[in-house]
Amino acid sequence: ADSKEVNDNVEKLRRGESESVRNPEDLPHFRLPTIQSGTEVPAEEASKDVNSSGKKDMPPIGTYVLPHPIWTEEQVNEVKVTHKEPECLVDRLAYRTVRLFRGGFDLLSGFKFGTRNEKKWLNRICFLETVAGVPGMVAAMMRHMTSLRRLQRDQGWIHTLLEEAENERMHLLTALQLKEPSTFFRLCVIGAQGVFVTMFGISYVINAKFCHRFVGYLEEEAVKTYTKCLEDIDQPDGPMKHWQTQAAPDVAIRYWKMKPDSTMRDVILAIRADEAHHRIVNHSLASLRKDEFNPYKPGQ
Amino acid sequence: ADSKEVNDNVEKLRRGESESVRNPEDLPHFRLPTIQSGTEVPAEEASKDVNSSGKKDMPPIGTYVLPHPIWTEEQVNEVKVTHKEPECLVDRLAYRTVRLFRGGFDLLSGFKFGTRNEKKWLNRICFLETVAGVPGMVAAMMRHMTSLRRLQRDQGWIHTLLEEAENERMHLLTALQLKEPSTFFRLCVIGAQGVFVTMFGISYVINAKFCHRFVGYLEEEAVKTYTKCLEDIDQPDGPMKHWQTQAAPDVAIRYWKMKPDSTMRDVILAIRADEAHHRIVNHSLASLRKDEFNPYKPGQ
Ligand SMILES: [Fe+2]
Ligand SMILES: [Fe+2]
Ligand SMILES: [Fe+2]
Ligand SMILES: [Fe+2]
Repeated sequence: ADSKEVNDNVEKLRRGESESVRNPEDLPHFRLPTIQSGTEVPAEEASKDVNSSGKKDMPPIGTYVLPHPIWTEEQVNEVKVTHKEPECLVDRLAYRTVRLFRGGFDLLSGFKFGTRNEKKWLNRICFLETVAGVPGMVAAMMRHMTSLRRLQRDQGWIHTLLEEAENERMHLLTALQLKEPSTFFRLCVIGAQGVFVTMFGISYVINAKFCHRFVGYLEEEAVKTYTKCLEDIDQPDGPMKHWQTQAAPDVAIRYWKMKPDSTMRDVILAIRADEAHHRIVNHSLASLRKDEFNPYKPGQ
Repeated sequence: ADSKEVNDNVEKLRRGESESVRNPEDLPHFRLPTIQSGTEVPAEEASKDVNSSGKKDMPPIGTYVLPHPIWTEEQVNEVKVTHKEPECLVDRLAYRTVRLFRGGFDLLSGFKFGTRNEKKWLNRICFLETVAGVPGMVAAMMRHMTSLRRLQRDQGWIHTLLEEAENERMHLLTALQLKEPSTFFRLCVIGAQGVFVTMFGISYVINAKFCHRFVGYLEEEAVKTYTKCLEDIDQPDGPMKHWQTQAAPDVAIRYWKMKPDSTMRDVILAIRADEAHHRIVNHSLASLRKDEFNPYKPGQ
């Protein structure tokens, strides 16, 4: 790759011609929208997503995503609020920490007071999802670095953690289709990420089991939150009843392979099913030894 | 997920029954060995890999890997040592830094002196690959966090960076099949990772373009190194000529889908092709704007 070659390649890439590989058919590994739905995603589709930078020729959000479960109607409706009793000191510590976070957040965000409305819900969802995307990525990086540093295999955990991280980021990008974040909101997000990345990273070095249990309990709260959101949608004069009919954003329809006429209610159901999935995955990982093989297959 | 459910699930997972998903056929996204080769990988295969913890029922290394290019014989043989001329201050800085690193490492590792042999080569390869796995993962994490923090899409870069990181880690795990690391070696690796993760992370925050250019130049050196290794293998009385016939480790045959009778020479050819691929990818990413869509598709 000399200068000319690199420049030619960049030109080609900008025109949308990426380097050819010998057997592209060998590589249906990611959920490309064209492969998945069997129909082309026309370029105009992309520009429908807020945040696609408005360029017509830009591929839509979620063009290359990791495998993830696609829920059936039955599955999204059978999600329950559950609680795993803490069994040891680490468990109890993890649970206390989550309860403390939740209490503090409900108070500081003003979610406890007054009537709930769409603005409050979107604020809450967007903020929580910017935090939710952190643990999976930090844990994946930690295990990757540990594998490199200790000169041993990872035991198949990394892909599950990356899938969780990306899934949470897709929750965020979906919710952002309905929200224009304010400067104050952005500052809160930046601050929260700084604190949480540092704390979670240090905790993961000290005790990875605590961290996975912590995420397990965090996801218990997430399921509670989205269940409450569904109540606000379903009550005859609930504050969110318009989400019964409001169309789902395009990015959500592509990502969860939903029917084209799906609503925001369906989106919240899918997100809740994802959270319930992270709940069992993280509680299970916390109960496995760090050097046990992770039996979750890609997309499970 | 209450306590019982979690414990039941952990039991099930330990027995190798992972949670069923509705349409497992939907998910051939990762290169499962069974899917790839068309033949089952018997459990005994796994135990052939050093570092599989010796358990018979443990899935082999590389069971869940991201898509990555599988090279043809033609492709691995046409790899050339190339150089991209620095074009701006950032490029020059990146190039100087790489040259400095290379010079220092050649000196300190004693690779410049005396005759080269298998021990020296394995030391060098293993050490360099523990470092090579860092940039992709750090860059992927940085872009993931930036997406969460700035509340905007990533533009499809993350998967390419993660693929690079995993590919380098597979290089390491392959080379480790032939090497039993000493305590001194392990200490060097730990020290190097600490320094490099910190430096690369800070650099990525300051100037991501510099970092991708730096990796581009690093991979130029990697191609040089593996080309030299091939010379040592191919010369009639080269110090590594036994790699012409020495069998490739099982993990390599699975990962690069090589013929069963492949040799260590074939492994080095495949690794060199990977490095040449990272070279053009990183030089190209360095020449794109951070907010341009990454046109490399999964596995390309
Ligand atoms: Fe979420
Ligand atoms: Fe979550
Ligand atoms: Fe490498
Ligand atoms: Fe490399």
